[in-house]
Amino acid sequence: MNIQTLKMDVVTLNAFLQREFPQWNSETGSQVMDVTADGVICRLPFNDSQLRPGGTVSGPTMMGLADSAMYAAVLSRIGPVALAVTTNLNINFMRKPEPRAIVATRRILKLGKRLAIGDVSIVSEGDTDLVAHATVTYSIPPQR
Amino acid sequence: MNIQTLKMDVVTLNAFLQREFPQWNSETGSQVMDVTADGVICRLPFNDSQLRPGGTVSGPTMMGLADSAMYAAVLSRIGPVALAVTTNLNINFMRKPEPRAIVATRRILKLGKRLAIGDVSIVSEGDTDLVAHATVTYSIPPQR
Amino acid sequence: MNIQTLKMDVVTLNAFLQREFPQWNSETGSQVMDVTADGVICRLPFNDSQLRPGGTVSGPTMMGLADSAMYAAVLSRIGPVALAVTTNLNINFMRKPEPRAIVATRRILKLGKRLAIGDVSIVSEGDTDLVAHATVTYSIPPQR
Amino acid sequence: MNIQTLKMDVVTLNAFLQREFPQWNSETGSQVMDVTADGVICRLPFNDSQLRPGGTVSGPTMMGLADSAMYAAVLSRIGPVALAVTTNLNINFMRKPEPRAIVATRRILKLGKRLAIGDVSIVSEGDTDLVAHATVTYSIPPQR
Repeated sequence: MNIQTLKMDVVTLNAFLQREFPQWNSETGSQVMDVTADGVICRLPFNDSQLRPGGTVSGPTMMGLADSAMYAAVLSRIGPVALAVTTNLNINFMRKPEPRAIVATRRILKLGKRLAIGDVSIVSEGDTDLVAHATVTYSIPPQR
Repeated sequence: MNIQTLKMDVVTLNAFLQREFPQWNSETGSQVMDVTADGVICRLPFNDSQLRPGGTVSGPTMMGLADSAMYAAVLSRIGPVALAVTTNLNINFMRKPEPRAIVATRRILKLGKRLAIGDVSIVSEGDTDLVAHATVTYSIPPQR
Repeated sequence: MNIQTLKMDVVTLNAFLQREFPQWNSETGSQVMDVTADGVICRLPFNDSQLRPGGTVSGPTMMGLADSAMYAAVLSRIGPVALAVTTNLNINFMRKPEPRAIVATRRILKLGKRLAIGDVSIVSEGDTDLVAHATVTYSIPPQR
Repeated sequence: MNIQTLKMDVVTLNAFLQREFPQWNSETGSQVMDVTADGVICRLPFNDSQLRPGGTVSGPTMMGLADSAMYAAVLSRIGPVALAVTTNLNINFMRKPEPRAIVATRRILKLGKRLAIGDVSIVSEGDTDLVAHATVTYSIPPQR
């Protein structure tokens, strides 16, 4: 598959994700900000439930953003296939993020028929230093 | 360090974790069920906010349990050191978990002065088939 | 698939691996020592080309053993499918191994139609402390 | 630490690596080709011992290059510290590499006092499609 061919844009991606994850709303869920040449950029607003001791954003919060950014990146290229599933996620935590929004820049590294692999760089909004970096593998269901 | 020497038991671990994570309460947070010869067993009760499309427990929910089970396992051996931080988490998702409680069995594989490494097997409560398996590395702050 | 159903035993596995990897011979290649209830045990003899500064066995040597032990474990259950390929390998190095043979105990954690996942514990022969622990994912080609 | 401050250049890096790894010579070992703004570029020449069934370069060969490229990138910034050790390596294999030289582009993602983290993109020489992508963590010994 070709990562240059887009099947969903920012608006349709956000609409699809919000329909799929009814618990999310625009205040607590991650939003696709941009569809880029090789992936997407997603933003997760800050709220108190993400806090860990020390006043930093929790690891699972970052993992959730890494995962949903990969999902959005794959969907933007293959279309609204609700059944794509994460099979592997590897994340390195580098700095303690400030208690504010985090932004994930996702690159698709491979988009095959059965597997998609990408990596994601996460920063606190407005910063350049990485707070986390993750690699994610998605299994793509056979297309009819 | 010796993984056989215990510094915290089930009751003190749960009290410490609940104090550290004030968002958690006994209904939504994971609980340490047992401190074992080489780790701990933790249980995360089910609630609707964990659901993903298809009626399964979300990936970030399992990642959160894998992470907190590692934290509990390390604390049980080194004592209440609030500043230990996850540096790496690698998780493989194997089956879609049923919408019910999940249970994590954590083994400590190495407990060094600076790094602790463990793996965790996650099942739906009452099942034996793995829904996920994770390896987690913790950085331990220098002890005074 | 069922990990209890064996399709290859120790002798046929070693014969197949040696045919597939002609560079290997009984002195330098890993050998399957046992096919266990949930995986295999493999042994890699020591030779000087594995050495790293400090007199320890190199990381790539351990990675190679982790990989071939996973391959052997999958083959023992699905039969001689030469085209199964590693898609992901995650390894944690825990102690510097002595300059002697290393032994890998491989567990299959999931054996699906398309993906197999296992973990492997590596020790220096005769020791119990882990020198490395790895998780490996194999992609299984569609069976005709 | 600052990844912009270089302590070793291409020539001193290659000299140090060759001294440390006496098994390597200019025909079989990886060479640092360039020290870049955020890492290094390394090249591993092809030889028959790297072959796997199907005529592709083996996984352990790519893992070895990923590992040594990270080592070179860290050394270029911290100087010739022979005792830095890999603690974690996560690699995704994406395409079967042709039987020719492979080239690794290494980015340092974090360079802390105790840990360095980087990722590496591996291609067959002359290609742009990734054959593998790896994330590597190094533990840096305390400096006197």
